[in-house]
Amino acid sequence: MKIALLGFGTVGRGVDTIVSSSTPGLEVKRILDLPQNCTEPRMTPNYDEILADPEIEAVVECMGGLEPAHEFILRALRAGKHVVTSNKAVVAAYFDEFVASASEAGVGLFCEAAVGGGIPWIAGIAKVRRIDEVSRFQGILNGTTNYIIDRMQTEGLEFDDVLRQAQELGYAERDPSADIDGIDVANKTIISASIAFNVACVRDLPVMGIRTLTKADIAHFASRGFSVKLLGQGVRQGDSYAVAVEPVAVPVSSLEANVPSNFNLATVEGATVGELKFYGQGAGSLPTGNAMVQDLLDCAAGVRPSYDFSATLTYDPSLLRGNYLIRTKATVEGADKGEGDYWHLTGITPVEAVAALEAARATDPNALCVAWPKED
Amino acid sequence: MKIALLGFGTVGRGVDTIVSSSTPGLEVKRILDLPQNCTEPRMTPNYDEILADPEIEAVVECMGGLEPAHEFILRALRAGKHVVTSNKAVVAAYFDEFVASASEAGVGLFCEAAVGGGIPWIAGIAKVRRIDEVSRFQGILNGTTNYIIDRMQTEGLEFDDVLRQAQELGYAERDPSADIDGIDVANKTIISASIAFNVACVRDLPVMGIRTLTKADIAHFASRGFSVKLLGQGVRQGDSYAVAVEPVAVPVSSLEANVPSNFNLATVEGATVGELKFYGQGAGSLPTGNAMVQDLLDCAAGVRPSYDFSATLTYDPSLLRGNYLIRTKATVEGADKGEGDYWHLTGITPVEAVAALEAARATDPNALCVAWPKED
Repeated sequence: MKIALLGFGTVGRGVDTIVSSSTPGLEVKRILDLPQNCTEPRMTPNYDEILADPEIEAVVECMGGLEPAHEFILRALRAGKHVVTSNKAVVAAYFDEFVASASEAGVGLFCEAAVGGGIPWIAGIAKVRRIDEVSRFQGILNGTTNYIIDRMQTEGLEFDDVLRQAQELGYAERDPSADIDGIDVANKTIISASIAFNVACVRDLPVMGIRTLTKADIAHFASRGFSVKLLGQGVRQGDSYAVAVEPVAVPVSSLEANVPSNFNLATVEGATVGELKFYGQGAGSLPTGNAMVQDLLDCAAGVRPSYDFSATLTYDPSLLRGNYLIRTKATVEGADKGEGDYWHLTGITPVEAVAALEAARATDPNALCVAWPKED
Repeated sequence: MKIALLGFGTVGRGVDTIVSSSTPGLEVKRILDLPQNCTEPRMTPNYDEILADPEIEAVVECMGGLEPAHEFILRALRAGKHVVTSNKAVVAAYFDEFVASASEAGVGLFCEAAVGGGIPWIAGIAKVRRIDEVSRFQGILNGTTNYIIDRMQTEGLEFDDVLRQAQELGYAERDPSADIDGIDVANKTIISASIAFNVACVRDLPVMGIRTLTKADIAHFASRGFSVKLLGQGVRQGDSYAVAVEPVAVPVSSLEANVPSNFNLATVEGATVGELKFYGQGAGSLPTGNAMVQDLLDCAAGVRPSYDFSATLTYDPSLLRGNYLIRTKATVEGADKGEGDYWHLTGITPVEAVAALEAARATDPNALCVAWPKED
């Protein structure tokens, strides 16, 4: 099968490397890039050439960002080409539109690489859903923030020092907000929930990040037997579902607490299969490229993902009602004052937790909010 | 698709429950059981009736044991029926014969449920292998022994006390040797290696169990930062491979060390995908039934596993050369005496470790041998 790459950065190069070395049935025929980057015969800055080439059966989008990725994906689908994408932002924003267009054109839309890099997470949820209703999922879905927390914890460093080193190593972007404010995890949570619950997941979900996490917070949590991890979460009960992204205190003996470096770990639960967890490299050139080539091999073998967003579920954040800990020098309305600057809020929804954190940040921009499994 | 169950114990009932409640496209038409158990119209003690029924497209073998399971699987394949099995003993013993017969008859042989229960482990290795050469796998593949070790560790109990409780709860067999001596893990390791390395794996591999593990051993390992887990392992380097089953000292902060209760955790590694881990319920009626129904859904969708044992690899146990700790009151030849009754053997193969343990057991039947990652 002949394919075209849209974008030739970290992920695009990973796909090209794997296709040329390990998958004899596939060939990268064209690569779309900016005119100044077109240094070899396969490259073109003209997308129309790719769309007009009947030999190209699948387009591999690894540009990132919303536009022109959104438009390019739609044009590929409408031109009868399969699309494989690693772009979580564009899939989270336009998943239902893409699925409808793919279905209309009789082609496949594949997005394994958009969540969890090389981990077969999308395939894993889709497989569980063939038999069980998914009751719950949760995941460490961002390697950069796991790396930051892991190094803060194991080496007793402050957030900013680790972030700077992560940027120097290329593990974190120059503008790290998508990672550390939870936006990247929110996109991955929307995609996971859409597949797990058969619903076009809400895009406006409660999201809290780890930007204000300190060495002292980590020590405070550790003294109570907890680590903190940034988790994307979804839950379904009957005809309702909820999703959220938040730092969560997890017991030090949990698998989540022991996920090292920039690895990901994601959990899905169904009535008959029980709890399944998937662990691996959630990003990087070769792991993400691997996931895209797996999608291409499925595509070449005739597999077509059957996403279905027709479930009429109500979005109800109260399904994720729980306890939270806010660390702030401000006063937190309705909270019990604990040790130091820590305030306990019990039985609130993630939406209420976001509101409480924002209220505290009005006077204390360094405030932090963490989901707290039980009162200590 | 109409199917027949061979055997109606824990797993067979799980398959029947899931098929009748969650998978409209499947129907359990017949169930093979002993005459005295045939209490409903679907049941028959006569296998020929099932083989002669052209409506039955797939046979689901969940009897366990070598014979007549071996004969029944071959007869089903030769009759042009797909076979789905959860029987690790029979697959480990006759995998190449089954695959050859299935290929000759143009039908599928599916064995996801034989290793790791509801965990998509077989599918996971097979998927990695589509792109990467598998360089290594290892797994906690037996829930009973993980349960025993976990309870010894968390509650400070002795082996025999936990085993007795596990037997009362139905987690362990009345004759527990297949679990605690590592035979069950050996079968699962043979199957995993055959798929991971494309080779008909040797059946005579070095196997050590946990029958002689004591509370004092666990405390000794813990004081050095280790837990012990019974692992099945395989490694490939170039044209050689090795497999072994042994108790391994794992760092307390590893995911393996934190696997609770009767869960399984298995790891596979390839050059581009990196390290992938799969966690879940490795046994039980519904998780194992779920894996068999997943196989049936794949089968109904036209998927045929393509196992290929044609790789000409040399079996070389020295690939797993490492350090071992033997606890015994006997004298261990060539070992350094450590604290108490612990002896250190460095740079030996698993085959040599088994020999050293057997030599010690000649005078001290309670001797234990554990793979030890580094000298303490």
